Amino acid sequence: MRILGVDPGLTRCGVGIIDSLADRSVRLVNVTVITTDKDLELPMRLLQLQKELALLIDEFQPARIAVERVFAQHNLRTVMGTAQASAVAFVEAASRGIPVDLHTPSEVKASVTGTGRANKVQVASMVGRLLILPEGKLLPDATDALALAICNAWRGGPVTTSPGALTPAQQRWREAERQAKKRG
Amino acid sequence: MRILGVDPGLTRCGVGIIDSLADRSVRLVNVTVITTDKDLELPMRLLQLQKELALLIDEFQPARIAVERVFAQHNLRTVMGTAQASAVAFVEAASRGIPVDLHTPSEVKASVTGTGRANKVQVASMVGRLLILPEGKLLPDATDALALAICNAWRGGPVTTSPGALTPAQQRWREAERQAKKRG
Repeated sequence: MRILGVDPGLTRCGVGIIDSLADRSVRLVNVTVITTDKDLELPMRLLQLQKELALLIDEFQPARIAVERVFAQHNLRTVMGTAQASAVAFVEAASRGIPVDLHTPSEVKASVTGTGRANKVQVASMVGRLLILPEGKLLPDATDALALAICNAWRGGPVTTSPGALTPAQQRWREAERQAKKRG
Repeated sequence: MRILGVDPGLTRCGVGIIDSLADRSVRLVNVTVITTDKDLELPMRLLQLQKELALLIDEFQPARIAVERVFAQHNLRTVMGTAQASAVAFVEAASRGIPVDLHTPSEVKASVTGTGRANKVQVASMVGRLLILPEGKLLPDATDALALAICNAWRGGPVTTSPGALTPAQQRWREAERQAKKRG
């Protein structure tokens, strides 16, 4: 199943697209950070974001869209832009009949690293291992968008088969999780 | 010039459309409150709002769109929905090349009643007088949307011709303004 994750933002909006396979392994399909020009007026920035997001959705045809749940209590300075960017993603999804799931940051961290208190580096490290990415190549917004997509792929819970029955991809995940926990 | 005012909200979004004439008098064209079903998921609610707003814009072809400027500091509980509803309005305007102006609540109050500290009743009363509406017929969100549109029509400042040169519409406005100030 193809999942598109959105880390909503007006200045930088991360978009990560993965395929989730039957063995729960995940594969990178595309990742990008949509940026809008701070010198443009707000309506033009949102329109630019809407157009680029629409192109990505139409090109990669995700079955689900996962968006970070934004809380008004946090980051008052940026919450308006974040809320507005997420609204654009919601409308693009809903107008195409694509289901949207919201995930909190701690839900994403817990899903990807095993702990809701993981820091950015731990999350980035796990995302890199799970998707077999070259190290240090991704912007934080890109990593967060991919983590959201992975969280969504695994939203039914972690792999529960016995260790002996693990596929290579599952073993890789378990090992990466163990490494991340050791670091934390 | 035709102006569409938007009082953004997810549960109730006021939309007021006026014509602003050369003598600075204003005429009601249309007013409505778009509501979305609280039981629907957020993406569907925003899509519903987007579709209804698009229909109104395409039917009435405003030259400008005026939207209330939302501050994250106020009404934390509803600020997310307000920000998201305004994002929908911004994208609809920008995608049609219609300029958008933002006005603060106190700017709107000052423009319509002469004081930035006017209460809801004073604003509603002035809007009713200026647009010659039957009393007590409008929902508050509708009144606020019309007040935004009037504020936008007069954004160049109040009428500055000498009293002797006032048109009947200007005289009506001056008189209504005087009445509102007396009440305040």
